[in-house]
Amino acid sequence: LPRDIILALDAMGGDHGPETVLEGAEKARSRVPGTRFLLFGDESRITAALAKWPKLAEQSEIRHTDKEILGTDKPSQALRRGRDSSMGLAIAAVKDGDADVAVSAGNTGALMAMAKFILRTKPGIDRPALVSLLPTARGESVMLDLGANTESSAENLVQFAVMGAAFAKTVLGLDHPKVGLLNIGVEELKGTEEIKEAGQLLKQANLPMDFAGFTEGDRITQGEVDVVVTDGFTGNVALKTAEGTAKLIAELMRRAFKSSIWSKIGYLFARHGLRSLQDHLDPNNHNGAVFLGLNGLVVKSHGGANAVGVATAIGMAIDLAADDILTHIAEGLKEFEGQVDLVEAVGAQ
Amino acid sequence: LPRDIILALDAMGGDHGPETVLEGAEKARSRVPGTRFLLFGDESRITAALAKWPKLAEQSEIRHTDKEILGTDKPSQALRRGRDSSMGLAIAAVKDGDADVAVSAGNTGALMAMAKFILRTKPGIDRPALVSLLPTARGESVMLDLGANTESSAENLVQFAVMGAAFAKTVLGLDHPKVGLLNIGVEELKGTEEIKEAGQLLKQANLPMDFAGFTEGDRITQGEVDVVVTDGFTGNVALKTAEGTAKLIAELMRRAFKSSIWSKIGYLFARHGLRSLQDHLDPNNHNGAVFLGLNGLVVKSHGGANAVGVATAIGMAIDLAADDILTHIAEGLKEFEGQVDLVEAVGAQ
Repeated sequence: LPRDIILALDAMGGDHGPETVLEGAEKARSRVPGTRFLLFGDESRITAALAKWPKLAEQSEIRHTDKEILGTDKPSQALRRGRDSSMGLAIAAVKDGDADVAVSAGNTGALMAMAKFILRTKPGIDRPALVSLLPTARGESVMLDLGANTESSAENLVQFAVMGAAFAKTVLGLDHPKVGLLNIGVEELKGTEEIKEAGQLLKQANLPMDFAGFTEGDRITQGEVDVVVTDGFTGNVALKTAEGTAKLIAELMRRAFKSSIWSKIGYLFARHGLRSLQDHLDPNNHNGAVFLGLNGLVVKSHGGANAVGVATAIGMAIDLAADDILTHIAEGLKEFEGQVDLVEAVGAQ
Repeated sequence: LPRDIILALDAMGGDHGPETVLEGAEKARSRVPGTRFLLFGDESRITAALAKWPKLAEQSEIRHTDKEILGTDKPSQALRRGRDSSMGLAIAAVKDGDADVAVSAGNTGALMAMAKFILRTKPGIDRPALVSLLPTARGESVMLDLGANTESSAENLVQFAVMGAAFAKTVLGLDHPKVGLLNIGVEELKGTEEIKEAGQLLKQANLPMDFAGFTEGDRITQGEVDVVVTDGFTGNVALKTAEGTAKLIAELMRRAFKSSIWSKIGYLFARHGLRSLQDHLDPNNHNGAVFLGLNGLVVKSHGGANAVGVATAIGMAIDLAADDILTHIAEGLKEFEGQVDLVEAVGAQ
């Protein structure tokens, strides 16, 4: 059985305040009852919100701070003034070994900057990556980097592949995840030099994954691969474009179902069936972006997530900590480094 | 009134053969009756298909060739052996002044390579770009580059902005299109050096467009800007991701409406309303990617397009030729070059 996890929770992050964050924690707690929570933020607000969840209160310890990071704070401001904020203290708890993982629904840029500064990059990793799940026709796939970096070298992309495979193993339960490099065509001649070189390295290395070569934007949502590896610029644009497209279609559907009395009646008949579509696409059911590659685990919950979404992100954080994903990543990288002669051979081509 | 256009049509390109291509030409012809067609391809097949469309036949001239570019041909093979194919001859007709614009539904890579080789890049343009329309919540937006190049400099991006604005003027009828640079955030500090520099150049130049700064992936489909400017790698991934997401949702909707007898009944009531959604998202209604920046116009119709889709692409080709978009682009670039001191000033910062 996995050991009980101590989770550092930034109770102040997110658009809906501590009430939603704590309701999410309660939902996650009832699924993984052994979890203990360190709750960072305003003590009086947290205590008031906890009154509704006595079991959660029993398993929680409040760490008061009246400072919080605002959505408008720049990463540099957060670094200068935010170390003793609810977000900064939650990350520091992971660094100090008081907690196994930190979760925050606050400002992404501030969270990335502070996590990187406080926890530092793991040995063997040059750059951390932001990893998340996205819905596909076959279930869910893992995608990284979603914006921790602007540009990525071939080595960065290889490290992302190793981290993404470990993530898929833990979160999707896949022993040999299928990993693809996002490109603008599947032929070996296509793409930037970095991507072509990363493709060569991954093809020739013998890593615990099924490297499927290049994949394309329209194949992501088909679930063709379990792990989509790309640089942070492209990944960020692709993820946001997918979100925007889903939002556009939802809006057009709303208009369509409101366009006449017949459509409204049709909606009443079909709504139960349509709920499974909504559930599958609901971002709350795929919530949780993980900042991987640091000496400690930090999970970002979407600022707009509801309690179900917060619970999804907290559940992911518990799984990653219980499965000790950082050790799996270190092992994967060691395996890759053990094949360094091969890497040099490819580099010399 | 615009002058009559002569259109060079690769009758052999596309997945559905000359019959669909010519049915599309007939649909476009009935809308713009003065257009004349040069039909490149197998004379007997074209003649047989034209029997159904006597008016189109009257306005057409068949240019026989028994060579055609296959979907599996590589760009290099097309360049070596494809000059006298239906695609190669259609492009050559534009170069020789026999036609105002060429349209093909054939192999994209081959078309781009041959168009670039035969027509050459326009003076003042360093790299051509692939431009297309995409559906948004407000109608349609223009996006470029969709994959003509893998990487783009700041100057390339500025040229794409000028070309995209001219395209929006012609195709969407906008005098002062709102132009945005695709980035991973709207703050000026975000993004690659190329994007930041392009943003500075466009902000300080006084061009016939409303430069809106940076835009993000989730804002594309909202129609926040009329023209989305990006490098060919990101643009290709974003477009394909949007297509893939739309396909995923369509598949989930099909499953939802089939999930029970109630959903099926609901679909019957709502299907008229849902048709407007389908129409808005149907790629056939936005078909036509234009290869801009060459000494001549080449339009790519999607290989899988039906006759309506082919007609959309041909209609776009006619509009672009009638409006003389290449002259507009040259004027826009001249205006930008006239501000070259400013550019140097920015570069020296």
